[in-house]
Order: sequence, then structure tokens, then C-alpha cells
Amino acid sequence: MKSFTIPADVPPSKKELFIKNMQTLYKQTDHLFLFACDQKIEHLHDDFDPDDDDVPEDAIDPEHFFKIGSKGRIGALATQLELIARYAPQYPSIPYIAKLNSKTNLIPQNQKEPISPSLWNVKNAVELMEQNNTHIIGVGITIYLGSEFEDKMMHFAAQSIFEAHKHGLLAIVWMYPRGKAVGDDTDPHLIAGAAGAANALGADVVKIKPPHASPGKTIEQELQEIVKAAGNTDVICSGGAKMDSIAYLERLYRFIHEGHIAGSATGRNVFQKSLPEAIAMTKAISAIVYDGASEKEAVAHIK
Amino acid sequence: MKSFTIPADVPPSKKELFIKNMQTLYKQTDHLFLFACDQKIEHLHDDFDPDDDDVPEDAIDPEHFFKIGSKGRIGALATQLELIARYAPQYPSIPYIAKLNSKTNLIPQNQKEPISPSLWNVKNAVELMEQNNTHIIGVGITIYLGSEFEDKMMHFAAQSIFEAHKHGLLAIVWMYPRGKAVGDDTDPHLIAGAAGAANALGADVVKIKPPHASPGKTIEQELQEIVKAAGNTDVICSGGAKMDSIAYLERLYRFIHEGHIAGSATGRNVFQKSLPEAIAMTKAISAIVYDGASEKEAVAHIK
Amino acid sequence: MKSFTIPADVPPSKKELFIKNMQTLYKQTDHLFLFACDQKIEHLHDDFDPDDDDVPEDAIDPEHFFKIGSKGRIGALATQLELIARYAPQYPSIPYIAKLNSKTNLIPQNQKEPISPSLWNVKNAVELMEQNNTHIIGVGITIYLGSEFEDKMMHFAAQSIFEAHKHGLLAIVWMYPRGKAVGDDTDPHLIAGAAGAANALGADVVKIKPPHASPGKTIEQELQEIVKAAGNTDVICSGGAKMDSIAYLERLYRFIHEGHIAGSATGRNVFQKSLPEAIAMTKAISAIVYDGASEKEAVAHIK
Amino acid sequence: MKSFTIPADVPPSKKELFIKNMQTLYKQTDHLFLFACDQKIEHLHDDFDPDDDDVPEDAIDPEHFFKIGSKGRIGALATQLELIARYAPQYPSIPYIAKLNSKTNLIPQNQKEPISPSLWNVKNAVELMEQNNTHIIGVGITIYLGSEFEDKMMHFAAQSIFEAHKHGLLAIVWMYPRGKAVGDDTDPHLIAGAAGAANALGADVVKIKPPHASPGKTIEQELQEIVKAAGNTDVICSGGAKMDSIAYLERLYRFIHEGHIAGSATGRNVFQKSLPEAIAMTKAISAIVYDGASEKEAVAHIK
Amino acid sequence: MKSFTIPADVPPSKKELFIKNMQTLYKQTDHLFLFACDQKIEHLHDDFDPDDDDVPEDAIDPEHFFKIGSKGRIGALATQLELIARYAPQYPSIPYIAKLNSKTNLIPQNQKEPISPSLWNVKNAVELMEQNNTHIIGVGITIYLGSEFEDKMMHFAAQSIFEAHKHGLLAIVWMYPRGKAVGDDTDPHLIAGAAGAANALGADVVKIKPPHASPGKTIEQELQEIVKAAGNTDVICSGGAKMDSIAYLERLYRFIHEGHIAGSATGRNVFQKSLPEAIAMTKAISAIVYDGASEKEAVAHIK
Repeated sequence: MKSFTIPADVPPSKKELFIKNMQTLYKQTDHLFLFACDQKIEHLHDDFDPDDDDVPEDAIDPEHFFKIGSKGRIGALATQLELIARYAPQYPSIPYIAKLNSKTNLIPQNQKEPISPSLWNVKNAVELMEQNNTHIIGVGITIYLGSEFEDKMMHFAAQSIFEAHKHGLLAIVWMYPRGKAVGDDTDPHLIAGAAGAANALGADVVKIKPPHASPGKTIEQELQEIVKAAGNTDVICSGGAKMDSIAYLERLYRFIHEGHIAGSATGRNVFQKSLPEAIAMTKAISAIVYDGASEKEAVAHIK
Repeated sequence: MKSFTIPADVPPSKKELFIKNMQTLYKQTDHLFLFACDQKIEHLHDDFDPDDDDVPEDAIDPEHFFKIGSKGRIGALATQLELIARYAPQYPSIPYIAKLNSKTNLIPQNQKEPISPSLWNVKNAVELMEQNNTHIIGVGITIYLGSEFEDKMMHFAAQSIFEAHKHGLLAIVWMYPRGKAVGDDTDPHLIAGAAGAANALGADVVKIKPPHASPGKTIEQELQEIVKAAGNTDVICSGGAKMDSIAYLERLYRFIHEGHIAGSATGRNVFQKSLPEAIAMTKAISAIVYDGASEKEAVAHIK
Repeated sequence: MKSFTIPADVPPSKKELFIKNMQTLYKQTDHLFLFACDQKIEHLHDDFDPDDDDVPEDAIDPEHFFKIGSKGRIGALATQLELIARYAPQYPSIPYIAKLNSKTNLIPQNQKEPISPSLWNVKNAVELMEQNNTHIIGVGITIYLGSEFEDKMMHFAAQSIFEAHKHGLLAIVWMYPRGKAVGDDTDPHLIAGAAGAANALGADVVKIKPPHASPGKTIEQELQEIVKAAGNTDVICSGGAKMDSIAYLERLYRFIHEGHIAGSATGRNVFQKSLPEAIAMTKAISAIVYDGASEKEAVAHIK
Repeated sequence: MKSFTIPADVPPSKKELFIKNMQTLYKQTDHLFLFACDQKIEHLHDDFDPDDDDVPEDAIDPEHFFKIGSKGRIGALATQLELIARYAPQYPSIPYIAKLNSKTNLIPQNQKEPISPSLWNVKNAVELMEQNNTHIIGVGITIYLGSEFEDKMMHFAAQSIFEAHKHGLLAIVWMYPRGKAVGDDTDPHLIAGAAGAANALGADVVKIKPPHASPGKTIEQELQEIVKAAGNTDVICSGGAKMDSIAYLERLYRFIHEGHIAGSATGRNVFQKSLPEAIAMTKAISAIVYDGASEKEAVAHIK
Repeated sequence: MKSFTIPADVPPSKKELFIKNMQTLYKQTDHLFLFACDQKIEHLHDDFDPDDDDVPEDAIDPEHFFKIGSKGRIGALATQLELIARYAPQYPSIPYIAKLNSKTNLIPQNQKEPISPSLWNVKNAVELMEQNNTHIIGVGITIYLGSEFEDKMMHFAAQSIFEAHKHGLLAIVWMYPRGKAVGDDTDPHLIAGAAGAANALGADVVKIKPPHASPGKTIEQELQEIVKAAGNTDVICSGGAKMDSIAYLERLYRFIHEGHIAGSATGRNVFQKSLPEAIAMTKAISAIVYDGASEKEAVAHIK
């Protein structure tokens, strides 16, 4: 198992907890699988509407996240702090990442530059953790780099990361260049910069969109450069919209083994399935992420 | 009686109070009746002007709310915190929901996107409750989802809900998509998303506008989907403008029994009546909500 | 004497002080006379310029307010908190209402929507009161309802009223609909709404502009409706620009006896006179307000 | 010597210090001389550039202010709090007024309305005073009345004045109407209003631009009216751009003896001279201000 | 060695630490070398992309900064506070300047005026320093003078400087006129003003862009004037984009010996080299800055 970076803003009294939280997320390996479930606010009903052919009835109830999280195999379930508060008492075994900010998808970008407003702070997460033993291991913050509101989100992220570390919690940044100043949000040069900025902001893990390939470079080669630019911050790719499960797993395998990213952040490709299929998918992903399984071995879980 | 969701942000020392407040609002059933009276700011004089044929003399004095609340049968009276402060000493028996934010109806939406400014905070509600035994059981917050100010209102709601739970109080969210980014504010898909967002923000109860029917789906079927999307947050529908009382009660019956919503939020359909008629109407509504009465049994109260 | 409303946000330990402050302002009657003197900021030099035929030399010095206040007969002198701080040591006998917000008249409404910025807070008023026995009995706050900044002013008013009551102080709201969303600021329906909103914000007294008459209704009939809409918040009318003194007193008499308002807020119709005339005018107003004098008896004071 | 106004926001325990600070600034007379040196931020290099014929080499180094302040004769040196912090240890004998806000002259008014941002607060001034015996006797705040940001500056000024008095410090307001709503910033009616507003905000001294004359009234007659409008706040005129020294002194004499202002605020007319000339000029000004000297006697100092 | 200015906002108990920090940065000389490494946020990937011919592979990993800082010879390494937090535990010997604010380069100036948002505060820096012995000796803050947001940045800088001194830390200001109100950002008159403003804001060191020459004046003569205008604040020039190393060193020599600036702030001209070359370059720069070496002696280090 790799040795973690323990940043200097983790006080000596919280180092043990920080390491324990790291080990929970990484399961004693070098990789992590984040079950990413903040869409109830980010996408409203779009990802959960059974009138859409691709969405099963199971997905409509937010408890679906927690059923998958408790019966499947994941590193941690990331969702809004209060959704954790409302379900964690019934699902105490799941490790949680408390998402602290979120916006809806109602306002088009040409009406107002994107901003993900802070909803909760690290103090709230710590209170939740301490008073009811909710198994929160870290916090999550979104930054739309390049938005006219990047100043507010960078400030919130920087402060939240510092505070999270102070309490022994991990900090994961959703780093998405967006806004009218951003032309191509999958430009590898831009994403490398965003990943490096996440490092300078103190993130333990940065979640990025996969870049596109460039002339003479594959996506995986671009990922390698992004991973280096992120320094001692681990890079994971967001899963994006639902796609063929086998193709998804093959891509994840390549990203980790050729692109050198640290793991997977998957949401729709898990929860937009019936409960048994979703549970199977978490096992397939975990096989790649945590067990070093081949694509074939992983795919076996969902067959 | 159903088992309540006690979210994890209610500390152990406040669980008993939280349950007691829930039981007050739900009267040991699965349903609730909120007497919604925040119109003195929201609509200014529009709902109270006896020059309007539909408004009786009784309605003009804000004390009308409290006379109805004390002599009628309701779950709780929801109004601005300070209106509670000014009348509760004379009406100590009413359970109150302290509305924390409110705007007037003076500024048209095309002049400025809607924002419901925070007027008070949970601390104020707790002080009121503790120092003079005002029977406050929860707080209410409005969010105009899709407004350019949704960031401010979501932040205020998230923080208020967390603080309310911390003190054993319930939190009810008035969730109304509004603003130029919102085309159709009774679109069921949009309302299902709004209800789900309220769940992720931690609301115990979400108050929505009834959706319209869709091709191939009745309003009640849409409500069923909305109720599922809201997870363990209870859904109630706002009563809207005054309509025929019998039609109102019949609609409420269908919404609860076919749409599976948790109850009623009624304001104008109660208080825009003379005191005896208003009291009778609260009894009719409560019969449906709390006693499982048929429409006919309910209508008997107002005949 | 009427029994006062003691709102529930006055803690038990401050009830005695609150009642004493009420009695000071109302002089054990049902009515009050507020000497309204916030024009040094609100109107800058416009009301004090002796180059204007209507303004006597006496008016130019702000001490004029205090000479009138100490030698005349008033309920309380309302002015900016710091003007009180600068003159109260020489005029300790006057009861004061500390105005907490104020704007100048320099910026035209079509340049920027009106906002009355908070200058001081209740804590400042309490400190002043406690450390030097300045006889502050309450605070005053202006709200321009309908301005794009109504959110900020309503928040400030709501918080100031809550804090004022917490310390046993009265709260008076200057409630003036204004801004481009407001067509007719003396529309009785609008003013009734504004007065009701002041009640929901917790004001003990609301100061409004007198409404105009409507087809089939006199001003006094409109005032009656406004007074009812304000519930247990007392309504007083602002005096406005200087007019004939006898006409002023006759109007005041009608407003109180036919319109049922609770008293008078007079500024320019008092202080834009020489000291002896101003003192006489306060006695005439007080005769109507406090002694139940007839118009004739009142007018005798200024003859 | 005149009896000072000790406002009620000076607590009893700080009255002695307040009086001492007053006496330092007024040197036991009725008049004061403020050496006004905030141009390093307000005008950047414009007043200090030796490439300009009118500016001697001596002026370029900010220490010039302090050499003049310590070797000349002044009431107090007013400059940014941190410039005091950087030089006071070498110049402990000078009484200081800590300027709390300042803007540069880079942004033209038609690009953005003027705002003087708060840089420090009274707490900072008190800490400086207490921990290193820096001889701070008061604070200074600029307000651009009529700017769209007047709300922010008036709030900051009101709070700073209250806090200053609470700690026994004097408060001086630089009151300059400015912004697109302000047509003529030397209109005597406007300046009288501004001076009166400074009084209502609690300023001990208000610094204004000299007004222009009006038809039938000299500048000095206008000043008399302004002085009355300012009530118990003392009025001083800003010196403005460098002019002929004798003319400057003669004007100052007339302003004090005919216009009844309380003294002088001089910056460029002192520091845009070589050190010996600047020292002589402070003596000439002080002769008029503090000694009641005639113009001739004053001019003798600079010959 | 020169005697430092110890500003009065350094409390007596922190003077020893302040002097020690000064001596660390200046190595007991009159000059300083700041290794300026805030580009991971300021320029994103632009300075680190090995696809660019001028950037070696070594530069891509942020650890490159720290390898250079620990093996080369510098006064202090300046970078974002959290980058320090993430690497300092492995590089405890480097003295650090914690940069507190930073923006990306994504938003063009004609879209939004530049603002460098505060990310951390002095309290964060002090906690980092105290709890894990991270060797932080000071803080860094950027101000874009002339931007429409200069008010916010000046406020943040002023407060951060005051707080830094209070804890015995140095304060360095990156002073860059920028925004549509700024025509020529290397105008010597403008930069002299900016340097003087930094002095009035309390900066111990101000980092400026080198000015251009003027008719009849060399760059070095302009620097002399700027240095004088900055008073007791030391002036250093930013190194800017990578250039020929020998030309860079010669320019630095002239700036110090003819322009009288206090030292060097170099980033890209060091870190855009392979590790051995970068280390050599730090030695060459330090030779000039700290040892008073000639250009030739300095150049010898990189041959």
C-alpha cells in the first residue's frame, strides 16, 4: 500500500483519524472508488425519471443510493450532507463524503455564470459525525474554474479543505472548468491546469472530466500528464452519462493502468440500474479499482 | 402511526423534542394539516381587502388567523416569526411553524429575479420558544428554485434546516420553481426534481404547487411519482387561491388517497371566510387529513 | 388607558422596561406624538435653509430639535442615533427614538433603487442607553417596500425589531413603498398592505404616508381599513411638508377621531418654525393626541 | 478655551482620554490644524513626482510627512493607519489621526461610482495605540455623499465613529459629495447639507471643500451658514492643490475669522515644499489657527 | 547589515520573531531573493506544459518547486498556503511565504475586472506554523490596483498585513496595476504610485513589474525614484517570463546596483529549467543578491 500524503494542516492529534479515513476510502490500496450521488440537486429529476427508457423504477427513490451503498462494494458514497443526515441512521455502515455545495441545472449558462453555492460547512459535517456517529470520512466541494464566480468557489474550497484537514477529514474537489470564458472543457491542457490548481488548493483527491485525445497523444497519455500536474493530489475521472457497462469498465481499466489515475467516480453508471444490477456493477468497478482485476475478471461480476 | 425519520442532525438530547413536535403536527397519524398564513407579507393586502367581493370583513385583521387557529382544528399555524411573537401570548395553545423568510409581491419578475430574504434565523425561533414558552414546533423557509438567487435561498434553507434539527425543531420547505429560467412551474418533472432537492436539503416536509396532468397520466399519478422522488421527505400541496369548498375538499381527498401526499397546506381557502365558516373548514380538512374521513364526511362539517 | 401588546420576543426580565417605555411614549393614553427629526440626513439642507422663505433662522442649527423637544410637549424625539449622542448630554430629559438607518436624497430613483443603509444597530442603542443614561426608549427603521433592496431593509428591520424587544425597547417602522415597481405610493390598498407587513415584521408602531381618498371612500375611511390591516401594530401618519398650522391640526384631529390612527409623527410642521412657535405647535398637537382636545382647543395653543 | 462636546457614546471611563485628545488637537484653543497626508493612496504618485516642476525632491519620500510633523508645528498628522505604523516608532512625538479608508485615483467616475473602501477599523487603531504607545488621538473616514456606494461608506463611518468614541478617540469625517448624482460639488447648499449629515453621523470634526460664493453672498457668508448647519461638529476646509503661500494664509485667516470655521486641513500646501519651507509653513498656519495671529504675523514665518 | 523597519503593529512579544523572519529572508544582508511559485493557480498549466519547447519534463510536477527550494539557495519559497501544507512535511528546511490569494488566468479582462480572491487568511498561516512547525516566515497578497475590485483587494491586504505583523510574520505585496482603467502597466509614474501605496498599506516588501524607460531616464533611474517613493518598504522586481539566463542575471545586477531595488523575485527563470540547471540558477541569483557578487561571478554558477 502506498504511503499517503498527510498535509501539514492536519494537526498531530488528527493524523490517526486522517490515515484511517484514507484507508477506508482506499481500502489499503493505491486506488479508490467514489460512488458519486449528488444528482438530486445537480440534475433534479433528470437522472431519476422512470418515464425515461434508460431509468429503472428503482432509481426514483433516493434510498436507492443507500441500498446500493450498503449492499454493494464501494469506497465511499458522496452526496449532499443532509441526504446523508436523512438516511445514514438506517445505513450506518456506509462511509460518506459530505458534499458541501451544489446547484441545480435550471439556469442556463448564458443567463448567469455557474456558481455552486455553499450549503453546509465543515463544522456541520463534524457535528454530524460526532453527535450521531455518522460515518463521514471527508467532504466534497465543486469548483467551476473559469466562471465569473470562481473567486467565491475557490475561497470556499480553500477554507473547507483547510478545515476538513484540521478535523482529520479528507477533501475531494470536483474540478470542472465552466462558464463563457471556457471554450473546450475537455481540453487536456486546461484539465491539467485545473488538476494542478486543485493541488495548490490542498485537495487530497481531484475529480475531473476525462480529457479528449490530442493529435499524437491518446487520452491515456493526456491523463498521465494531468496526473503528474496534480502532484501529490490523486486524480479520478467522473463517469458521466450512462453508457454500455462493459465499455465503461474497459475504459476505467485503461484510465487506471495506462492513464495512471487513482480510481473511479461513478454515479449514473451504477444507480441508473435496478438494485441487483447496480450492486453487481459496484463489484465490477471495485474489482478493477481495489483488486487489480483484469477487465475480463471485472466484467464477470455483471454477467 | 408511521415511524418518523429522525435525521442524524438531530442530536440525541433533542430527539424526544423532535418526536414530540412531529406528533403535534401529525396528531399521531401519517398526515398533517398546515394552516398557511404568510400572506400579510407575501401578498400584502391582496388577500385581505374586503372591497374584494370574495373577502369577508373578518379577514382584514391578522388576528383572524389566530382566532381560527385556536378555535378550529389544525396541525400547526405557519406564519412570520414576528406575527407569532405579537399574537402568541394571547393564543398560547396553537402550535406554530415560524416562517423565516418572505418577500412582497411588488417587484415584477421581469424587473428582478425573485428572492425571499431571510428575516429571522433559527436562533431567534429558539429564543422565542424558550423565553416565553411560545409553542413553536418548527421553521419554514421558501426557496425559489431556478431564480438567479437560488444560491442564496438554498444556502439559507440548508443552514436553517441543520440548525432547526439541532434544536429539535421541524423544517418545512416551500419549494417553488420560479424566475425567467423556469418555463412551466407546474410541470410534474420539474416539481419531482424540486421535491427531490428538498429531500437532499434535509426538509422534513416539502410544500409544492400541485402539478398539472400529463398526456397519459393524471395529476394523482404525477403526485405519486413526486412523492417517491421526495424520498423520506413528506410532500404536501399548497391550496392556492380560494375555490369552491367542496371541490377543494374533494381534491384534497384525491391527492392524499390517490396521489399519496402527506397532507394539506391551506391558507386562503380557510381564512378568506368568516370566522365560523373558517373554523368549520379547518374541521373538514382535518377530518380528511387526520381521521381518514371520506369526502362526504368531511363536507358535512361545512354544511 | 389601553393595554399594550407585549410581544413574546420581550423576555420576562424586560417586560417592565418595555411597559415603561410604552407609557413614556403614550403618556398613559392610547395615543402618541412622535417628533420626527431625521431630515439632517434624509433631506440634507433642504429643510433647514433660511434662504428659503418658509424656513426661519432658528431651524438651521440641529440643536433646534432639542430645544423644541425639551421645552415643548412631545412623546419622543426621533432622530439618528448619533445626533442623540451629540446632544442628549445637554438635553437629558427628552425621551428618544434612535433612528438606525438613513439615506440622503442625492441619488435619483431612476439612477439607483432606494436603500436606507443601516448605520447603527440595537446594540449601539443599548450601549448608549446604559453607559450614559441617555433616555432612549426605542429604535426606528425605514423600509422602502417595493424597492429592489427591500430584501436588505426587511432583513435589517426584522432583526432590529427582534433585538429591540429583547432589550425592552420599542420598535417603530417608517414604512414607505418606493421604487420603480411602485406606481402610486398613496394608494390606500398598497398602504394597507404595507401596514400589515409592518405588523408581520413585529413593529409596535408603523409610520405611513396618509393615503389618498378613493371613489366612494374618504381618506378617513381608508385609514380605518389600514388601521385594521395593521392588527396590533399602531398606525401613525407622517406629517409631510409644512402646511398651514390650523389645517394641519384639523387634519390630525380627523385622522385620529375618524380614521382611528394612533397619533402623529410631525417634523417639518414643528421645526420649520421659530422656537416659540414650534413649542406652541407641539402643545397644540399634544392637546389633540394626549388630552383628547377638540380642534378648537388645540388651535388655541398657537394663537 | 471652549468647552468641548463630549458625545454620549464616550463612556465615562474614556472621557478623560477623549478630552486629552481634544486638547492635543486644539492645543487648548477653539481651533485645530490637521496636517492631511493621505495622498500616497488617494493620489498615488501625482503629488510626489519631482519630474513635476512644483514638487521638490524632498516630497518623494513618505518620511517627508513625518519630518515635517515632528519638526513643524501641527495639531495632528492624518494618514493611513499603516503608514503611521511604519514610521511612528521613529516619530513618537507626533499626534496621529489614523485614516481608516482610502481609494486610488485610477478609476474614472464614469467607469465606477467612487467608493473609499475600509482598510482598517477602530480596533486596529486601538491595538496600535495600546501595544506600542503610538500616539493616535483619533480616526479619519472619507464619505463620498451621493455616490451609489454612499450606503456602504455611511455605514462604515457611523460604526467607526461610535467605536472611536467608545475608546476615547476623536472622529474626523472627510465629507465630499461626489458621483454622477452630484452636479456641483462646491455648491454651498449641498455642502451645508453634507456638514449637517456629518453632525448626524456623529463626527467631531468635518472636513469639507470650500464652497463657491453665491449671488449676494460671499464664500465666508456661505461658510457661516455651513458652520451653523453642522451644529456641534466643527468644520474645517481642505486646503486643496498647492497655491501661493501668502494667498493661502490670507484665505485661511478669512475663513476662520469671517467664515467661522474651526481651522485648517492642509496637505499639499505644506508637504509640496522643501523641508525647511514646509516647517515654516506649518508655523505660519499654526500662528493663525492657534495663536490668533494676523495674516501679517503669520506670513512673517515664511519670509 | 541594515536595521530593519519594525512597524508599530508588531507587538513587543513578537519583535524577536519578526526580526528572525527578516533575517531569514535577507540572510543578514540588505537584500532578498524570493523564489516565486504561485503559477499553478495563476497560470494553470501554461508554465508547466512539457509540450512547450521551453519547459522541461521536470517542471510538470509541483514538487519541482520544493526540490529546487531545498537543494538550491533562496531566501524563501512563495506559493499558495496549501501547496506548502502538502509538501512542507517532506521539505521542512525551506522558509516559506504563504500566498493568501490567487486567481486563474481563464477570464479575460474585458469580461470581468481582475480580482484575486482571498483563499486563506493569516490565522490559517499561523495555525500551520504552530501545529506542525512548518517554517512560514511571512504572507503574500496580490493587489490589482485600478481594478474595479481594488477596494476588496486593498481591504484584504491591509487586514492581512496588520494581522501578519501581529503574529511576527512578514508581509509581501504583489502590486500590479491592472484593469480597463489602467493604460500602461509599466508606466514608471504609475508604478511609483503603486509602490508608495504598498508602503501606506504597510507592506514590508513590494513586488512590482519592472517599469519601462522614459525619455531622458533609464529604467534604473526610474527604479531609483520608485524605490524612494516606496519609503521604508523594500522594492523587488518580478522576473517575468523566461529569458536568457545571463541577460537575466545582468539585468538583476543593474536593477540592484543602479536601480537600488532590494532584490529579486524569480519564478519561471528558475523553475522552467531542469533540476540541476534550476539549482545552479538559484545560486547565481543568490550570489548577486546576498554576496554582492559581480555579474561575472554570478554567471559562473550556471556555466
